[in-house]
Amino acid sequence: MSTAKLLISGSEHFADMLYVSGLFVPDAFIVVGLEHENNIAWHGLLSPLEVDRAKVQSKLDEVHLDTVWHDKAKNNGWQRSLSTAAAAFLQAHGVKNVTVPADFPFLYARELITLGFEVSPSPASLFPERVIKSEDEIIRLTHAEKLTAQSMLKAETFIAACGINNDGLVIFPSEHERAGEVVTSEAIRAVIETFLIGQGAVPSHTIVACGSQSADPHDMGSGNISAHQPIIIDIFPRLVASGYWGDMTRTYVKGKASETLNHMYQTVFEGQSMGLDMVQAGVDTANIHNSITAHFDKQGFKTGIANGKQGGFFHGTGHGVGLDIHENPRVSSNGAILEQRMVITIEPGLYYADIGGVRLEDLVVVRENGCDNLTNFHRTLELE
Amino acid sequence: MSTAKLLISGSEHFADMLYVSGLFVPDAFIVVGLEHENNIAWHGLLSPLEVDRAKVQSKLDEVHLDTVWHDKAKNNGWQRSLSTAAAAFLQAHGVKNVTVPADFPFLYARELITLGFEVSPSPASLFPERVIKSEDEIIRLTHAEKLTAQSMLKAETFIAACGINNDGLVIFPSEHERAGEVVTSEAIRAVIETFLIGQGAVPSHTIVACGSQSADPHDMGSGNISAHQPIIIDIFPRLVASGYWGDMTRTYVKGKASETLNHMYQTVFEGQSMGLDMVQAGVDTANIHNSITAHFDKQGFKTGIANGKQGGFFHGTGHGVGLDIHENPRVSSNGAILEQRMVITIEPGLYYADIGGVRLEDLVVVRENGCDNLTNFHRTLELE
Repeated sequence: MSTAKLLISGSEHFADMLYVSGLFVPDAFIVVGLEHENNIAWHGLLSPLEVDRAKVQSKLDEVHLDTVWHDKAKNNGWQRSLSTAAAAFLQAHGVKNVTVPADFPFLYARELITLGFEVSPSPASLFPERVIKSEDEIIRLTHAEKLTAQSMLKAETFIAACGINNDGLVIFPSEHERAGEVVTSEAIRAVIETFLIGQGAVPSHTIVACGSQSADPHDMGSGNISAHQPIIIDIFPRLVASGYWGDMTRTYVKGKASETLNHMYQTVFEGQSMGLDMVQAGVDTANIHNSITAHFDKQGFKTGIANGKQGGFFHGTGHGVGLDIHENPRVSSNGAILEQRMVITIEPGLYYADIGGVRLEDLVVVRENGCDNLTNFHRTLELE
Repeated sequence: MSTAKLLISGSEHFADMLYVSGLFVPDAFIVVGLEHENNIAWHGLLSPLEVDRAKVQSKLDEVHLDTVWHDKAKNNGWQRSLSTAAAAFLQAHGVKNVTVPADFPFLYARELITLGFEVSPSPASLFPERVIKSEDEIIRLTHAEKLTAQSMLKAETFIAACGINNDGLVIFPSEHERAGEVVTSEAIRAVIETFLIGQGAVPSHTIVACGSQSADPHDMGSGNISAHQPIIIDIFPRLVASGYWGDMTRTYVKGKASETLNHMYQTVFEGQSMGLDMVQAGVDTANIHNSITAHFDKQGFKTGIANGKQGGFFHGTGHGVGLDIHENPRVSSNGAILEQRMVITIEPGLYYADIGGVRLEDLVVVRENGCDNLTNFHRTLELE
């Protein structure tokens, strides 16, 4: 009896499906990988709406119209569902055992089990090999990160050109059509995002968080931008053509940073440099994370709950980036051994309710004796 | 023994999770709905990275730090996983039976079943009530669709101002900095998307497909735009603040449409008008779909495979729109009874390899005796 791999999902937000099909499809469809000796042939079952495009654009080995398999399922007396159409296809190919991704829909799994199939979930991705990028994938990630860095430069240049009013708020520069108006998170976000979208990269929830907002690592930020306060800018757009992501973060101050903030920035800067220096094949990511944590502790920046809020460095040092924005390996205390051509972020940060936050993030390719930094962008705190 | 509802997912792309939490979180987290008599209390278990933001921004009844529950799971000798942390929380609240969304990850379901929980998947969404929109949700959908229509007007105005060169290609207008250059799908997409992103709406895979590309309903389109050929523009941005979607489609010709294309456009126009006129509470969507199909047939536009490709009207007439771009109810031959405050698209189309495609799509709110058209935008084929 043969075995097979089975996916049923859309591919816009299910990276395994995009990885295997190479095709963006908004709604769920069926892909079966039929295993024969050491080969696997990938079959797609697609609706009339998608089937012709899939034939031309996908990297599947065979593309079939799903209606045929819905009809066969109906003839078997099975309820209409993507799982029963998949079951009909598996049955016709003598398959009883399927492996599915960890996030395979439970309803479909139960329907298949009821029909007598054995369904085994993978521990995580159906394609653990996704953590190692091909040179072709690295070219796409490099392009995504290049656009990300260019958009950061747009934001930095814009903030540098701005003024500060008597209330300590950042204002549009004198040559701007909104000269003198107070600059907001939304306005800086628009500078970044209109650039990216014009370059074929889709940004979403870009973080431009100032002052107390920056003390919360995932606060998008909104409203007026204050001078002399930290501004965290975290940009992570996705290439519309291929689905690969960029990811980088810088922290700025318009005007002058306080001594404490300067010390915090310097400490995060050193922590990130330390982390970047440690990245190479064979290293355990727990060592990277723990070295940075130790450095922060030594500099007096403690992690823990203060006044009922998280303070210090309370997220991982980084994560893999590919067709998912957050994927394996994780750079955290849980650990993972780095291998060549993994692509990861190094993004330590410090956050305190009374000071705000500082985070610096670069994207790098793990190599035998170090890493290639795809971000390749200066780190400057004060603008003007 | 109490029962509970359980979700484990991120909320960027899992609409049930966004619906119940009101919070955008990129990575998976845990939400438990504890049922007591006729009440349900929603508890969120979030990582240190997200917990403080969730306390302020989410609409959950209670927000807990998940590390506490990971520790309890560890003390029970359970492997670290979001499912075991959820299990520890359920155990502490005397819950053995949980209902989960249809797309709940199979791996987590199996881990919970192994620990002795009974896990029941819903037939689809955990919140079937999502199909009926509150007036507050309708306000957001109205805003999303208004921005969508404004971006369509930008595209239409741009194409109208363009010229046609001696090769029959559409060129940038004389006052444009790229005057005389050939206009591409990418250039029109940039006009649409840079507007939307500046307004807080994220577009992705916006369709601008010309000529033979327009014969494939989901081809994004690329390259040069030809005069006298159909250009399908399908725009579906998502509001960055709330996650609600807009969705509309128009078909244009720069220059003169052929007689056949004119007839096809007129037929789709009539089909869409017919569909829009039929929308009201109590109507079966199969009747709407079948009426349009019958009209197309009567006008000589047959559906079926020709030269190995789908031709005619081979997708549904429409779909629900909310926190998902494609959600229930479906307007198709499968049928569904419309109810007040459902929000659906009416988007018939015709596609032939040798002519190209025509699709017209509006977004409407079902009302007692008809519908409110949120798109509220003219339908014009020829520009200039």
